[in-house]
Amino acid sequence: RDGQGSALLTACLHGPRGTGKTALAADVALRSRFPFVKLLGPDSLVGLSEQGKCQRLIKVFDDACKSPLSVVILDDVERLIEFIFMGPRFSNAILQDVLTCLARPPPAGRRLLVLATTSNRQVLELLGGAQAFTEEHRMEPLSLNEAHSVVQQAGDQAGLDYSQAAHALLARGEGLTVPVKRLLLLLRLARQELPEGETSVPRVVFDQLIQNSKLLPEGEDADERY
Amino acid sequence: RDGQGSALLTACLHGPRGTGKTALAADVALRSRFPFVKLLGPDSLVGLSEQGKCQRLIKVFDDACKSPLSVVILDDVERLIEFIFMGPRFSNAILQDVLTCLARPPPAGRRLLVLATTSNRQVLELLGGAQAFTEEHRMEPLSLNEAHSVVQQAGDQAGLDYSQAAHALLARGEGLTVPVKRLLLLLRLARQELPEGETSVPRVVFDQLIQNSKLLPEGEDADERY
Amino acid sequence: RDGQGSALLTACLHGPRGTGKTALAADVALRSRFPFVKLLGPDSLVGLSEQGKCQRLIKVFDDACKSPLSVVILDDVERLIEFIFMGPRFSNAILQDVLTCLARPPPAGRRLLVLATTSNRQVLELLGGAQAFTEEHRMEPLSLNEAHSVVQQAGDQAGLDYSQAAHALLARGEGLTVPVKRLLLLLRLARQELPEGETSVPRVVFDQLIQNSKLLPEGEDADERY
Amino acid sequence: RDGQGSALLTACLHGPRGTGKTALAADVALRSRFPFVKLLGPDSLVGLSEQGKCQRLIKVFDDACKSPLSVVILDDVERLIEFIFMGPRFSNAILQDVLTCLARPPPAGRRLLVLATTSNRQVLELLGGAQAFTEEHRMEPLSLNEAHSVVQQAGDQAGLDYSQAAHALLARGEGLTVPVKRLLLLLRLARQELPEGETSVPRVVFDQLIQNSKLLPEGEDADERY
Amino acid sequence: RDGQGSALLTACLHGPRGTGKTALAADVALRSRFPFVKLLGPDSLVGLSEQGKCQRLIKVFDDACKSPLSVVILDDVERLIEFIFMGPRFSNAILQDVLTCLARPPPAGRRLLVLATTSNRQVLELLGGAQAFTEEHRMEPLSLNEAHSVVQQAGDQAGLDYSQAAHALLARGEGLTVPVKRLLLLLRLARQELPEGETSVPRVVFDQLIQNSKLLPEGEDADERY
Amino acid sequence: RDGQGSALLTACLHGPRGTGKTALAADVALRSRFPFVKLLGPDSLVGLSEQGKCQRLIKVFDDACKSPLSVVILDDVERLIEFIFMGPRFSNAILQDVLTCLARPPPAGRRLLVLATTSNRQVLELLGGAQAFTEEHRMEPLSLNEAHSVVQQAGDQAGLDYSQAAHALLARGEGLTVPVKRLLLLLRLARQELPEGETSVPRVVFDQLIQNSKLLPEGEDADERY
Repeated sequence: RDGQGSALLTACLHGPRGTGKTALAADVALRSRFPFVKLLGPDSLVGLSEQGKCQRLIKVFDDACKSPLSVVILDDVERLIEFIFMGPRFSNAILQDVLTCLARPPPAGRRLLVLATTSNRQVLELLGGAQAFTEEHRMEPLSLNEAHSVVQQAGDQAGLDYSQAAHALLARGEGLTVPVKRLLLLLRLARQELPEGETSVPRVVFDQLIQNSKLLPEGEDADERY
Repeated sequence: RDGQGSALLTACLHGPRGTGKTALAADVALRSRFPFVKLLGPDSLVGLSEQGKCQRLIKVFDDACKSPLSVVILDDVERLIEFIFMGPRFSNAILQDVLTCLARPPPAGRRLLVLATTSNRQVLELLGGAQAFTEEHRMEPLSLNEAHSVVQQAGDQAGLDYSQAAHALLARGEGLTVPVKRLLLLLRLARQELPEGETSVPRVVFDQLIQNSKLLPEGEDADERY
Repeated sequence: RDGQGSALLTACLHGPRGTGKTALAADVALRSRFPFVKLLGPDSLVGLSEQGKCQRLIKVFDDACKSPLSVVILDDVERLIEFIFMGPRFSNAILQDVLTCLARPPPAGRRLLVLATTSNRQVLELLGGAQAFTEEHRMEPLSLNEAHSVVQQAGDQAGLDYSQAAHALLARGEGLTVPVKRLLLLLRLARQELPEGETSVPRVVFDQLIQNSKLLPEGEDADERY
Repeated sequence: RDGQGSALLTACLHGPRGTGKTALAADVALRSRFPFVKLLGPDSLVGLSEQGKCQRLIKVFDDACKSPLSVVILDDVERLIEFIFMGPRFSNAILQDVLTCLARPPPAGRRLLVLATTSNRQVLELLGGAQAFTEEHRMEPLSLNEAHSVVQQAGDQAGLDYSQAAHALLARGEGLTVPVKRLLLLLRLARQELPEGETSVPRVVFDQLIQNSKLLPEGEDADERY
Repeated sequence: RDGQGSALLTACLHGPRGTGKTALAADVALRSRFPFVKLLGPDSLVGLSEQGKCQRLIKVFDDACKSPLSVVILDDVERLIEFIFMGPRFSNAILQDVLTCLARPPPAGRRLLVLATTSNRQVLELLGGAQAFTEEHRMEPLSLNEAHSVVQQAGDQAGLDYSQAAHALLARGEGLTVPVKRLLLLLRLARQELPEGETSVPRVVFDQLIQNSKLLPEGEDADERY
Repeated sequence: RDGQGSALLTACLHGPRGTGKTALAADVALRSRFPFVKLLGPDSLVGLSEQGKCQRLIKVFDDACKSPLSVVILDDVERLIEFIFMGPRFSNAILQDVLTCLARPPPAGRRLLVLATTSNRQVLELLGGAQAFTEEHRMEPLSLNEAHSVVQQAGDQAGLDYSQAAHALLARGEGLTVPVKRLLLLLRLARQELPEGETSVPRVVFDQLIQNSKLLPEGEDADERY
């Protein structure tokens, strides 16, 4: 509303892998209807030297600052800075440039929204902790009931009967960690195994997929354990 | 008054993020009415190689020494030397040049004031501790009463009614850490959410903003905890 | 069946050395009848610089993405990333590119299966643990009975009498670790020592080979001990 | 007296910052009336690469060896070798060259005196401890009485009345650490604050300066604490 | 006998220094009467860059694979990979290439025998432990009786009387570590000290040599102590 | 005597600084009357890059191998390999070349004697411990009586009366560490302070020199303490 105030907003979406952080960031970016939207993830930088990665990163933010309204998504920010717990190792050069870009307000009259996603708490610390972002949002795996609804809805959308799959899920009981992304993968796998003409995923088939996929309660603890 | 004495003054402003260190440094620099004023922060060096960063830094000080009266602000000095607690890592090359520039008096008849800001105690140690600076000033977050005044004044300046916002703040009680910079951001956000024609920020709206912003008592401890 | 779903499948085969991980991966790849099959192991990269290794790796995946149906085997993935426990040391540059390639889905309408083999648990952790792969399969050394069958079958195929060798194996009793690859090597060695015209491997000869080969129960523990 | 004996003398001046080590080294050098006197400090090397710093250092000693009587001052030797406690980090290349130059006697008939100053004990260890130097001298902060005399003398020289400043100092009592360099800085600051025509520094003014300057008993311990 | 089986055999000779590992490897290589025999030791790589060392190593194995029957001796393999316990440090680039060459079977119809020698257990671990080699042989210092025989035989071969030297050895009693290489060196030294025309090494002379040589029981423990 | 035996002899002289290791090595080299004698110390390599230092080292040994009888002195070998306890740091490239040169026998018919000096036990370990050298000699500081004799002899040679200086030494009593090199330096200093025409060094003068020089019992312990 006022072009002057809060020209730079930075938000961090964190939580275990597969909980839909990137999907949410993309959704927010698209709904913003801002003319400039750019997603920068590890794949955008693959094959570049460290210096080349820094230059690409800075260019994205420079470009964003030329547009009146911009969104930049730093996807998998721990991978952007090449963070590996063992050591730990990371690229201080890229990290420094990320930090500078996260703190640099756009020129007067322009607004910039930066959305970062990470499944690694340590990296959040590296980025300056809670105070580095104007907002912070934690994503959780689905509860059993939420997962049940997701399966039902997916069945409705696909014109298939996923009720037995949904039962298989509920039967596993509490303690099950269900990242939404993995759940959707399981449904795709189940669908592929359907014989021609069949419209219902058998309970035993889906249960087997759950078991193989190790939807064990290691979500947050495993992903953000360091 | 006498061009010979104390040709080099160095001061360090330290304290938690958002307590207005950079604002104070800029204010001191402007009020000095010295002809040469230069702020050197991470953003001034972004995209340069380590060697390029060293050269830029030395050039700023060389230029400062050509003017009879100069101020150099080393803003976010921990970021200038690329300090990261994890490791820890920092650029020894840049650090060495900062140390040399901080200790090098200007030529006879010229005066130089260096103001460094940092929210990281460890970096102060790296720079040589208390004895490295001729002066040292610690910035604190606002007390609850100070924060209250700031909100009232901001309302007066904006021609808006911030009294309910000020109440929301007081109601949170002691233990609340209020870095002035973040407080002003909250006010800007509140203002943007005002419906057209409204002139009063509702208490519940501002209270919600406080809660989301995590104005928790982690200020000094979190920022300078190492 | 449906070209859209699960375009990227990644599986990790892990377990002690000599348990046939690479053989299984190759078998899966060939049985897939996918037009593009590529095995990338340490030998494919020998003599290249770190940068050259990264480029080769990325090129394999880029090529795979040009074919509608592709399989890439990352053989001995701990050696691809030059992992050495002492230190530990590894090439973060190669590791980052492996991680990116493992997470990058192929273009719409194309399908990619990535099979990684490793005998080092730590490397599995580096690659992101269980959640990094859509499937995971652990290979075990042969049980004594399985080893016995393998020896019998190998004798049948070779038109030789391996029954005494099989007895030598059983006589060693439980506690014996028998990676299938090493077992086949022993049989080849035994065969080479057969005098012209002889068709039966003497028990004492094969027993000696077992003893020299140290088929001790250090399999998984030794290989994945870190 | 005899051109042959003790052609190389090396002395180390160490002690807390501000105790006049460099001043003493310069004084010794000038009083020697040796034709070649060279001070090499961090400022002499700023902006050079590590290799360039090594070359400059070696050149100074080569030049010194061409003169029959030479003095080289290695000022702030811990900074010359870029020593930082955190890590610790230092330039082994520069350190090795310093060590070689410190041990290399000049050609026959020539004499070389090397004076090194350092406020960091660890660096003295790096340089080979007490045995590396033919002489070693420790500088202490002024005692309260010495500081009192210095203030009185400075007043006499300046034609000003510093007796109240001297009282302010004594009143602080024992436990006060007074590096001479900082004391002289305080006197210069006090002098600048004197109103036109005033010739006496008020006690309260000087006391305030002492307090701000943190002349606390952290001298030796703080500077050489590692 | 059959060109197909066991195309790659790798053996590791390990044990304390001076126990004849290299001599044994050379003996095996010569007795093999294979047309291609190549010894690669630290001396073969001296003066090359790390990259040059890798290229030389790979070339030796490439050449070996062009010959139908080849032996490659990797002598002092801990020195080839520049292993130093302090740190520890080693060249991961060379190590990776050694590992690849040790695991790469020659083309069909060709056979390759690789013999590695090392006096450092840690390096054996680096190379992948017992399972990395198809065979492993541990060399021990001579027992007192073996040493006695060696001395007697050496005397016979030289046409000299070493019986007193042999007695000197026995008189030292158990606990004496006698690496064969060092024993032969002692005999050569003793022989050089024989006056013209003398044919018998005096007991006291040889005993003195033993004492100076420190044939103490630190053999295996000292060499492979890490 | 016989050109074939013991073509390579390597000896290590170790002990505290100032005990005459280099002097002894030089003396041995000169008395050998070998046509090729080369001393390689830190000063020989100053100003070279690491690669240049390696090349110079290898060239010295290559040259030595061209002469029938050669001596190479590796003086201050810990400094040659740029060893610093803090870290520890050293040049593995130079160390590897030293190790190779120490183990490489000259061509048939030529003899090479290598003498290494070091005051640092750790470096001896790096070089492979006692077994790396065919001989090893430990240098000790002078005993009080030896020191007394040295002073007397020096007086006789100089035509001066050092008897009081010798008394000053004895009076200090046991526990005094007297590296011979430092003792001779003290005598030179004492001699320089003699007034014209005086021929006797006063006891008090020499005693003062001893005290300043810190001939404390930290010799071996301090120098080889790691």
